Amino acid sequence: MKPGGKVLALAGGVGGAKLALGLSRVLPPEQLVICVNTGDDDCFHGLHVSPDLDTVMYTLAGLSEPTGGWGLAGDTFGGLEMLGLYGAETWFNLGDRDLATHIRRTQLLRQGATLSEVTDHLARRLGVAHSIVPMSDDPVRTVLDTDQGRMSMQQYFVQRRAEPAALRIRYEGAQEARVAPAMAEALDKASLIVLCPSNPYLSIGPILAVSGMRERLEGASVHRVAVSPIVGGAAVKGPTAKIMAELGGKVSCVGAASQYRGICDTFVIDEVDAHLGPGIAGLGMKPAATSIIMNTDEDKAALARVILEMGDG
Amino acid sequence: MKPGGKVLALAGGVGGAKLALGLSRVLPPEQLVICVNTGDDDCFHGLHVSPDLDTVMYTLAGLSEPTGGWGLAGDTFGGLEMLGLYGAETWFNLGDRDLATHIRRTQLLRQGATLSEVTDHLARRLGVAHSIVPMSDDPVRTVLDTDQGRMSMQQYFVQRRAEPAALRIRYEGAQEARVAPAMAEALDKASLIVLCPSNPYLSIGPILAVSGMRERLEGASVHRVAVSPIVGGAAVKGPTAKIMAELGGKVSCVGAASQYRGICDTFVIDEVDAHLGPGIAGLGMKPAATSIIMNTDEDKAALARVILEMGDG
Repeated sequence: MKPGGKVLALAGGVGGAKLALGLSRVLPPEQLVICVNTGDDDCFHGLHVSPDLDTVMYTLAGLSEPTGGWGLAGDTFGGLEMLGLYGAETWFNLGDRDLATHIRRTQLLRQGATLSEVTDHLARRLGVAHSIVPMSDDPVRTVLDTDQGRMSMQQYFVQRRAEPAALRIRYEGAQEARVAPAMAEALDKASLIVLCPSNPYLSIGPILAVSGMRERLEGASVHRVAVSPIVGGAAVKGPTAKIMAELGGKVSCVGAASQYRGICDTFVIDEVDAHLGPGIAGLGMKPAATSIIMNTDEDKAALARVILEMGDG
Repeated sequence: MKPGGKVLALAGGVGGAKLALGLSRVLPPEQLVICVNTGDDDCFHGLHVSPDLDTVMYTLAGLSEPTGGWGLAGDTFGGLEMLGLYGAETWFNLGDRDLATHIRRTQLLRQGATLSEVTDHLARRLGVAHSIVPMSDDPVRTVLDTDQGRMSMQQYFVQRRAEPAALRIRYEGAQEARVAPAMAEALDKASLIVLCPSNPYLSIGPILAVSGMRERLEGASVHRVAVSPIVGGAAVKGPTAKIMAELGGKVSCVGAASQYRGICDTFVIDEVDAHLGPGIAGLGMKPAATSIIMNTDEDKAALARVILEMGDG
């Protein structure tokens, strides 16, 4: 990557947020744009909830739940309890401070602001210096056809704890959705594109499904690096492995890489998967083995540095 | 009042809620309808807030702040703090559990329910057996012209701590607002009408301003009892005395009674004001002196009993 070059990172939830945080530690704000999945946005209690945007925002603001789940550290839950008293469904856990994010987002959206504008406003107010942009300002909804019927991403993932068997995943609205302006600009100006270690189906898939997005990534002349969400045949976090198996893919870093054919030059795998390098190479990508488990903030920054060095190669 | 007769109580905020609670302690649910001012409803953070409806509802549910202010006992304030971080104005104090009320109300209103329906739903879910109804399902907004400009009720009362001098009070939308259905039914069926000790200008005034309301009260053939919000030349609570003085009225129970000319048969004053009885009589009302300060729940029930006995006279 050329000195001062810009990095565009595509991220979903917790795993993506970890690498996004690492990148934000080693790159100044003007050199990083983090594009986030909005396919699992949903409406709860009449409020617009953007789980992945918030996970990335809270993580970069240093406010996220340190156990690695959703939400804000030390949040309280009186509001949700009260909503339950009023007969509202409360299976989607929303803390009081987290609810404030959704209240403010919903208010600004109703006033006519785009999701990009709202996201930028909220993140700046929380002291986030790097740019966080939704993949699109238009609604895209990840929907799963399962053996127990059709359900939204949050119904599947949170309410049903990812227990139903996934038969098919659709990204409703993606064909009509336009790439968000800041995302389009970042695609044009990036010297390096990073696909963070998020679920290829549920987190990166919706981003790639936005109209014209995959074509832009295919046509990008800059280095494109993806990080495997699978280590040693298991997902680092979440239901990625289960979904891959159900949708007929191999539960391995090679299976994950196969989702990125044509849009990835270097696929980063963990050292424990180094022997699977030839399978990656067979997909037309250069395998690169390193430690990709990010437990500490130093792990995150270290992986970010490794990836940026790959951009130089 | 005939046995089993129905009581319609008109109430504003804290003072009205006290007597409403007293009435609910001595009357079964089918014999009491509490009609509440919505002139100080407002929109905060995109949410519909109904301060007086909530004060009455929380009070009857046994959930209100025992110090006699707004809101729910033991509420937390993380959400409001977070809204402040996002740059929202936070001078209107909203607890986390209280915010849930406004979130749920706003959601149900947006789904097409009337404010009457929403109010009934929320109150029932909190275990309130007696009927609480808004004065109207249509928007009425109490607006004050002051020496520091025009302001909404909450701007005047909360943000500006009732410090500007009131020049004029208007009830915007009142001419177009229809009496809420349950209120209209209660007016038809009531054997006794009680005007609770609330601010005549800011709490009872908006109710009386709803199209046709004053005429219905004037024409009512049942006993109408009002309780003075002024004791010994001072308001029991809030800015009533200050506003009365600014608007040219006498700051006394007689001044308060003058606001109810033609719609009140018996005006209840405190024993300390017994000497002012002739002034009340001069307005065409029968004065009745008793202890009207309600500190304990027993005080509230006792005053309610005295009022119901007046209905028999």
